[in-house]
Amino acid sequence: MCADCDPDFSPPGLKADLEEGVTLTPRFGPDGLITAVTSDAQSGDLLMVAHMNAEALKLTIETGEAHYWSRSRKALWHKGDTSGQIQSVVEMRIDCDQDAVWLKVRVGGDGGSCHTGRRTCFYRAIPTGGPVGRATLVLRDAERLRPAFG
Amino acid sequence: MCADCDPDFSPPGLKADLEEGVTLTPRFGPDGLITAVTSDAQSGDLLMVAHMNAEALKLTIETGEAHYWSRSRKALWHKGDTSGQIQSVVEMRIDCDQDAVWLKVRVGGDGGSCHTGRRTCFYRAIPTGGPVGRATLVLRDAERLRPAFG
Repeated sequence: MCADCDPDFSPPGLKADLEEGVTLTPRFGPDGLITAVTSDAQSGDLLMVAHMNAEALKLTIETGEAHYWSRSRKALWHKGDTSGQIQSVVEMRIDCDQDAVWLKVRVGGDGGSCHTGRRTCFYRAIPTGGPVGRATLVLRDAERLRPAFG
Repeated sequence: MCADCDPDFSPPGLKADLEEGVTLTPRFGPDGLITAVTSDAQSGDLLMVAHMNAEALKLTIETGEAHYWSRSRKALWHKGDTSGQIQSVVEMRIDCDQDAVWLKVRVGGDGGSCHTGRRTCFYRAIPTGGPVGRATLVLRDAERLRPAFG
């Protein structure tokens, strides 16, 4: 099976169709994955960046709950299945060349999305405007909702 | 040179340092890249998903303007250099395992970020809650700011 082809989705067409068409033709990479970017539907804050294989993308579309492919565990990952942090999709979008999706979600359970126990995985800022050697990270939204796991 | 090592950045340490430390130790993939997610600092809308190599990351930090690595052109890409769509970084964050960065930006020029001439690359919604076979994309924020190029 070619990486771009999956029985659940139509194969990607020409550039014009890919960019201007209304047919979903996701372009999975050589590893069979596309990038998924998830943000909080209310605040707009980025929560996490993850990956989806064809099955995860299909299940996310059909159930309205975020499913990913865990590259570390090499397994389908229904986010919140064990933690209760189900991500209900408010809106889902795909980008111009159909190799990335954006999920705007409402998070269940304690409201966290990061395995460190925080609301977002992006809890540290990188100061800009100076040499990288001095770029000490600055904690933001760093309070934990629960003990870390994983 | 190992993909994770770059003279401009400290090498990634143990999991605890990576996740809880304040030292920037980016984890570039086997291709030498990390994922960069860029959103509009004011609206919170996702604008684009791209990639950075060590040089692009360094230049973004030092200049406060978004630089990427263009995988298609295999070249450093100072966003807006020719189009005027300079992305000024309002805040930059890194994620828990330091393999993705989030840029909140103010966009110069005509305010676009997508090569199709739109404000965002994510101008089509994927309806959820039904079979994927019927997932016809729905246009959102689809008006062009200028003719498409690229």
